[in-house]
Amino acid sequence: MENKNQKILIIGAGLCGSLLALRMAQRGYQVQLVEKRPDLRDVTQDAGRSINLALSDRGLKGLRLAGVEEEALKLCIPMLGRMIHDKQGNTFMSNYSGRENEYINSISRPGLNMLLLDAAEAMPNVEIIFNKGCTKVDLENAVATFKDYNTKEEITYKADVILGTDGAGSVVRKAMFNDRNFLFSFSQNWLTHGYKEITIPATENGGYRTEKGALHIWPRGEDMLIALPNLDGSFTVTLFAPYSNSDYCFDTLTTPEMVMAYFETEYPDAVALMPNLVEEFFDNPTGPLGTIKCSPWSSFGKACLLGDSAHAIVPFYGQGMNASFEDVVVFDEILNKHDSKTSEENDWKTIFHAYEMTRKKDTDAIADLAVDNFREMKELTATPLFQQKRKLEMAFESQFPMEYFSKYSLVTFNEDITYHEAMTRGRVQDKVILNLLNDGRLPDSMELAEKFKLVKKETTEALHDDAVVGNL
Amino acid sequence: MENKNQKILIIGAGLCGSLLALRMAQRGYQVQLVEKRPDLRDVTQDAGRSINLALSDRGLKGLRLAGVEEEALKLCIPMLGRMIHDKQGNTFMSNYSGRENEYINSISRPGLNMLLLDAAEAMPNVEIIFNKGCTKVDLENAVATFKDYNTKEEITYKADVILGTDGAGSVVRKAMFNDRNFLFSFSQNWLTHGYKEITIPATENGGYRTEKGALHIWPRGEDMLIALPNLDGSFTVTLFAPYSNSDYCFDTLTTPEMVMAYFETEYPDAVALMPNLVEEFFDNPTGPLGTIKCSPWSSFGKACLLGDSAHAIVPFYGQGMNASFEDVVVFDEILNKHDSKTSEENDWKTIFHAYEMTRKKDTDAIADLAVDNFREMKELTATPLFQQKRKLEMAFESQFPMEYFSKYSLVTFNEDITYHEAMTRGRVQDKVILNLLNDGRLPDSMELAEKFKLVKKETTEALHDDAVVGNL
Repeated sequence: MENKNQKILIIGAGLCGSLLALRMAQRGYQVQLVEKRPDLRDVTQDAGRSINLALSDRGLKGLRLAGVEEEALKLCIPMLGRMIHDKQGNTFMSNYSGRENEYINSISRPGLNMLLLDAAEAMPNVEIIFNKGCTKVDLENAVATFKDYNTKEEITYKADVILGTDGAGSVVRKAMFNDRNFLFSFSQNWLTHGYKEITIPATENGGYRTEKGALHIWPRGEDMLIALPNLDGSFTVTLFAPYSNSDYCFDTLTTPEMVMAYFETEYPDAVALMPNLVEEFFDNPTGPLGTIKCSPWSSFGKACLLGDSAHAIVPFYGQGMNASFEDVVVFDEILNKHDSKTSEENDWKTIFHAYEMTRKKDTDAIADLAVDNFREMKELTATPLFQQKRKLEMAFESQFPMEYFSKYSLVTFNEDITYHEAMTRGRVQDKVILNLLNDGRLPDSMELAEKFKLVKKETTEALHDDAVVGNL
Repeated sequence: MENKNQKILIIGAGLCGSLLALRMAQRGYQVQLVEKRPDLRDVTQDAGRSINLALSDRGLKGLRLAGVEEEALKLCIPMLGRMIHDKQGNTFMSNYSGRENEYINSISRPGLNMLLLDAAEAMPNVEIIFNKGCTKVDLENAVATFKDYNTKEEITYKADVILGTDGAGSVVRKAMFNDRNFLFSFSQNWLTHGYKEITIPATENGGYRTEKGALHIWPRGEDMLIALPNLDGSFTVTLFAPYSNSDYCFDTLTTPEMVMAYFETEYPDAVALMPNLVEEFFDNPTGPLGTIKCSPWSSFGKACLLGDSAHAIVPFYGQGMNASFEDVVVFDEILNKHDSKTSEENDWKTIFHAYEMTRKKDTDAIADLAVDNFREMKELTATPLFQQKRKLEMAFESQFPMEYFSKYSLVTFNEDITYHEAMTRGRVQDKVILNLLNDGRLPDSMELAEKFKLVKKETTEALHDDAVVGNL
């Protein structure tokens, strides 16, 4: 882009929008960032509490790009693995990696969002406007209309381009969906499960009631509980359960007695940690779990979607925020690439198209991996074959740290390979190991190095077989 | 269903709606069938001309169920295989099966629709209403509002249940999409290609200008031409080409000279058969190619989608109409099953749910197979490895007719196995054969029986490997 003086209107000041605003301002653009909610920094709230998210290498790379990684790390609690809780209350730890430096972090969503808003606001070329909800987008002219939640007045902003970071319910995306001038591919897929948040409070002296350095899982087949630590000693617990058609489901959990009976049967050790279980169960909403995909992400070279507005995913790989931050990295790389080109090749239409061509296969991949991982978490983490596989992978990763990377590790800790590559390689590797274990071809008597050699050989062959069909 | 006197409102009198109306009337229900278009039997048109479709075993099974198969077969032209045309105008025939009795049929869409309307109208308990377009559906109360295209008047019909057979642009489905009382999963996925129809007219004495008993294909990688015969000696030709970003695409084919240059370069032998090519190219619209999936197919036990409204697919497997007719067969089987149950288990909500549980995985499968087949038709039919595979499969099917069924055969000629099963088995079989051929493990010197044994063994193993992961 020759003309850095262009005005960029970013709609949505959540995690993705705030980071994007900061980065676009660092690149020199005039940025206007508009958010429908009030400024979350004005509301009294503890940065260490409320909803938390998993932050890992891809997300950190995005924060690093914008120079805010160090600040963000101060809000992080490392989680080294999954702490699995069985029905009897027994626990066992399943590390995320056999390499010591590979772990994920629990971080407060509002805490991180405030940090990003502060950093963006400190830039002279960023204007942040709160309380204005987008009601209409004129895609061809990069004009958006907003309604002020306090004054109810309508206001219109015009820009050179609009970047839509307004989340899963994106108004910018809906404008594309309703536009009859181009074909818009779109999918929204809901799981049959919903989720509900409950709290494990800190102890009276601010300590943690259970292991701090882990993501806790109570896998129960159709339903599960997970818990992530907060800085203040509390944990945010999330119940994932079917809406209906199951022994225990949101449709039938309608009385305090039923809720208590359910939790005492399925999650007895967790019940002891949640003094306000019943109250919170009925106070807190039940949220849906959906995947959204669409294409094209941009229209008329005037508007482009980034983050959840383009690709909302279910939370089971802990990659939603990380994927959005990686969007900013990829978009930034595309801008770098086009900076050096002639003016015909660096218009926004070309840039948006190049961005989608580069990025979409990867966000499609993480969307599918996240749905797969739901089954893995609620069901498979409790099965012997799966546990054998994880144990073997841990051993490979610690014995052959430069050579073996599990699917989880490829997705979570290897930000230099794409989600799509991680998916392709990871799925084949999983299938190979599960089949070798199932067929008794990796007996205990076998040396680890021999096992590794066999897995590697069969993985290479299977990838070759897939490629013969794919490259035909 | 105890009470057969119930009123069924069927919205959409296309192929699926007409067959469904006929069948529901045969079961004894009071059927009201409402169509937005005029009665196509009133418009002068030759049943043998205009758009044609591929009718095969699954579709015939549906027609048989309603007692109209014999009549329909009179409108059919058997197509024994694909006649592949290369750039030099050379042709070679690739049969659909190594078994003699396995072929598909070209049939006129309006001709078959008229036949079904006549049969439905002959039932005393069917009322057919034309020229009324559905504008609104009250899903909870099975009430639909229609606008008369002539009088512009609005009219409301109430029924016990509504069956939506109003096609890819379904108004009933849109009512479900917009309903906030339940989560509606939905996807619309457009190919980057569009299509346009052109005619090969009959010769002066009503003969065919090229081989009648084949589906003609001119595969050219990114684009292709196909042609299906009509009873009057003509062929309906369809060009499939990218909208944009290609040497030849709809966006750039804007002058008669460019169109002629394109066809003369790519399809020289076809040009000679299409005297009105340029005129028709610019007169006829360019249509989009999309896949639609959704769930749930029903709401409140009061409305249910069948046919394209629930699962529109691209035309490349020739299964769109066949899938819709099979819907009627499966729905009928579900009704049979619930007929014998207690009244609590045979309400419409249960029936609709059971129908979707039985059927959706199969319509999802044929949707995906149809997209795969686009690549096969435009690209793979022209590659040596693919041609070797087809040749081998032909040999297997003629030598081992009770044992070997290609993916195409499983999908098209084996109506007693489901689309999902056909997809699962067919894809694995394809991958096995392609890899064995690619790796030189099926040399010419090998006996056919040995080749068959090897393919069978590797297919069984690969299905087992998939099952280990799937059944974990």
